[in-house]
Amino acid sequence: MVDVNRRRLLTGGAAALAAGAAVTQCGAAQSATPAGFGHTVEPYYGEHQGGIATPAQAHALFVALDLVPEGGRGARETLAAVLKLWSADAARLTQGRPALADTEPELAHRPARLTVSVGLGPALFERIGLAHRRPPTAIDMPAFRTDRLDRRFCGGDVLLQICADDPMVVAHTARVLLKNVRAMTVQRWRQSGFRTAHGADGSGATMRNLMGQVDGTSNLRTAAEFDRFVWDDGAGQPWFAGGTILVVRRIRAEMDTWDELDRASKEFAMGRRLDTGAPLTGTRESDPPDLQAQVNGIPVIPPNSHIALARPVHEGERFLRRPYNYDDPPAAGATTDSGLIFASYQRDPARQFVPVQQRLAGADAMNPWITTVGSATFAMLPGVAEGGWLGQGLFG
Amino acid sequence: MVDVNRRRLLTGGAAALAAGAAVTQCGAAQSATPAGFGHTVEPYYGEHQGGIATPAQAHALFVALDLVPEGGRGARETLAAVLKLWSADAARLTQGRPALADTEPELAHRPARLTVSVGLGPALFERIGLAHRRPPTAIDMPAFRTDRLDRRFCGGDVLLQICADDPMVVAHTARVLLKNVRAMTVQRWRQSGFRTAHGADGSGATMRNLMGQVDGTSNLRTAAEFDRFVWDDGAGQPWFAGGTILVVRRIRAEMDTWDELDRASKEFAMGRRLDTGAPLTGTRESDPPDLQAQVNGIPVIPPNSHIALARPVHEGERFLRRPYNYDDPPAAGATTDSGLIFASYQRDPARQFVPVQQRLAGADAMNPWITTVGSATFAMLPGVAEGGWLGQGLFG
Ligand code: HEM
Ligand code: HEM
Repeated sequence: MVDVNRRRLLTGGAAALAAGAAVTQCGAAQSATPAGFGHTVEPYYGEHQGGIATPAQAHALFVALDLVPEGGRGARETLAAVLKLWSADAARLTQGRPALADTEPELAHRPARLTVSVGLGPALFERIGLAHRRPPTAIDMPAFRTDRLDRRFCGGDVLLQICADDPMVVAHTARVLLKNVRAMTVQRWRQSGFRTAHGADGSGATMRNLMGQVDGTSNLRTAAEFDRFVWDDGAGQPWFAGGTILVVRRIRAEMDTWDELDRASKEFAMGRRLDTGAPLTGTRESDPPDLQAQVNGIPVIPPNSHIALARPVHEGERFLRRPYNYDDPPAAGATTDSGLIFASYQRDPARQFVPVQQRLAGADAMNPWITTVGSATFAMLPGVAEGGWLGQGLFG
Repeated sequence: MVDVNRRRLLTGGAAALAAGAAVTQCGAAQSATPAGFGHTVEPYYGEHQGGIATPAQAHALFVALDLVPEGGRGARETLAAVLKLWSADAARLTQGRPALADTEPELAHRPARLTVSVGLGPALFERIGLAHRRPPTAIDMPAFRTDRLDRRFCGGDVLLQICADDPMVVAHTARVLLKNVRAMTVQRWRQSGFRTAHGADGSGATMRNLMGQVDGTSNLRTAAEFDRFVWDDGAGQPWFAGGTILVVRRIRAEMDTWDELDRASKEFAMGRRLDTGAPLTGTRESDPPDLQAQVNGIPVIPPNSHIALARPVHEGERFLRRPYNYDDPPAAGATTDSGLIFASYQRDPARQFVPVQQRLAGADAMNPWITTVGSATFAMLPGVAEGGWLGQGLFG
């Protein structure tokens, strides 16, 4: 709770409060706002886009689009037009005001912490004749040994990430933003995710994923951590200062075999307990894992457990995880199609994400039960100043 | 709000309160339960299944399954086995207790008003050798002029309807119930729907659909109305007393052309205002429509508007509407795939639903913007008494 509030301060909660908006959190939201939490707003303007340091909303939609026309000056102008439209619409929608020419304006009045975040695929820069302005950190992911990629969930020129605590808001926002650019884009893929409903758990506990694990314990939280590990400082491309790189992986949980595993084996694979989320060497979720601890010469937290391999070998490997659960209709004959929309945000995925993913691909004890079926990278644009538009610096 | 509370009383709220469960509503839930609304439970045992008279939860999943083997005594025994398993699991899960052998028990602790409701397709009775026990009201829908049915959303031997205020609960419940019967069933179709998030709107207002309309104003609410129009009285089949017939139609909203229509035309098509939901002859949502009112000899509410045609010609045509919005990934080239999972519950669809749907198919001014792409009927089983199982009377 403390951490969440700290993060909220970073991300403009104070500004929003000053502006008179009801900024409240979790269970507290309801008693403070008898009108319902739907009126709570996240700021739109700022150094960074919302939806990244913003405490994760309950619902998220990730839509990857390709530009029409495909290349050259036409594509560049198209992209600028898309970004201008989205900036204007999102500035209004996030604040609970209908978009210009919103044909369902009543659906805009309770934004429920709506954020809209936009990113550009690494290959797009060259295609629109701006290769020299690509942030050097915006790269496609290398192949990993455990990847089983399905083209239906890979790549994309532009990412639209819409998060809110109300699925109605996500749907209406997607409708407005997508229809306004439909002549200029084709939708490439679309992934819907969720976490515990806002207010269902008044305790502010870490979310669980559909495998039953407490997921999100060890993560970035302070402003200093965000500045150091998430936000670009403009060293590579000055226009990109305040942006970040998103790696979004669709990771299927192999629930049928996972559910055959006994609890002890599940806990060994993760290195943490299922009930409390505590490391196997501790009793509380917040206890730091002790990777040296042994019993009869055997490590208590297996060296190939998920947390032992995923934890940063050095500080430079840290990044923000902001995943969502998905649960979609299964393929014919299957029982379940669920897993994580694993969204990680970092300055430089090559240094921060890739080494961790490589270690996990090599030996993660969780590997038999998780399969990466989609992957995409996006340069999430810096925030917008009032009067400006998303990505303006790229073209300027 | 008053109506909602009245309905809650009918559906066991009082019993649950007596049992010590936190039964609260909308905005009030949060201040009353600092632990979050997730602990709120709906009763499982009773004359009727939950999820019908229960005030609609924020999330719903409808899964239609076919039985394996397909016919005869084997199928009958399979069905009984499925119903026994589901009864035992749902009795626990709805009360916030893990199912027996629940492999993600921590996901069961906050049921968030979970209800599980089960129905049987009309054709199933004959296939399992129980044609003589089919409720005479359980019939497939006739073809309607405006139907554009896609087999992917039609029919099914068994329906599993899972509703809760938390999408995590819906996903976990679906997982448990579906995996336990996976050797005996194949999933035929699956539809996910939502309404405004629980607590987002503290005012207890009627939901809106994604076309922007206030949807749910004129509906059944009192215990007397449910007894008369929804619950079977056992006259046709004594074992079916307390059950009801569900007609579930997937109705696509043609958002691209709808959004080109001006507001006045949208309001004429419905007969109600978009802002307040009031009839065109009134100022408040609750004002009764005046279908006789004219201005310069022209009816204020067009005779072919949705409400003019949908309203019951006589009392016998009334039924419960309990729809959910859907918003799914669109087909290639399309912008949006959204609409209503239109769920209506009535004693006798041939007398209550069909004449209304026929009038609408014939002339509804909304027809250009709504397309029925799926249809199925299910005999929703009577409620379960403690110690019993769903559908027991059918076999007894
Ligand atoms: C479906 C796939 C995955 C699941 C279910 C999963 C689950 C978890 C869980 C339960 C934890 C422990 C609690 C916590 O600290 O949040 C954790 C930690 C972590 N995971 Fe994953 N994870 C998945 C994939 C990944 C991937 C692909 C990466 C990165 C390549 C990753 C990186 C991390 C990191 C860095 C930690 C924190 C380690 C620490 O410092 O203690 N995870 N994950
Ligand atoms: C996507 C399809 C549909 C949409 C968007 C829709 C929307 C609405 C709206 C906005 C109202 C007015 C507010 C209210 O009383 O709830 C309404 C009323 C109603 N609708 Fe629909 N509807 C749809 C399909 C249907 C179908 C298929 C039926 C039945 C066959 C139906 C039956 C009714 C009835 C009985 C009323 C109440 C009429 C009255 O007594 O005033 N609707 N609908």
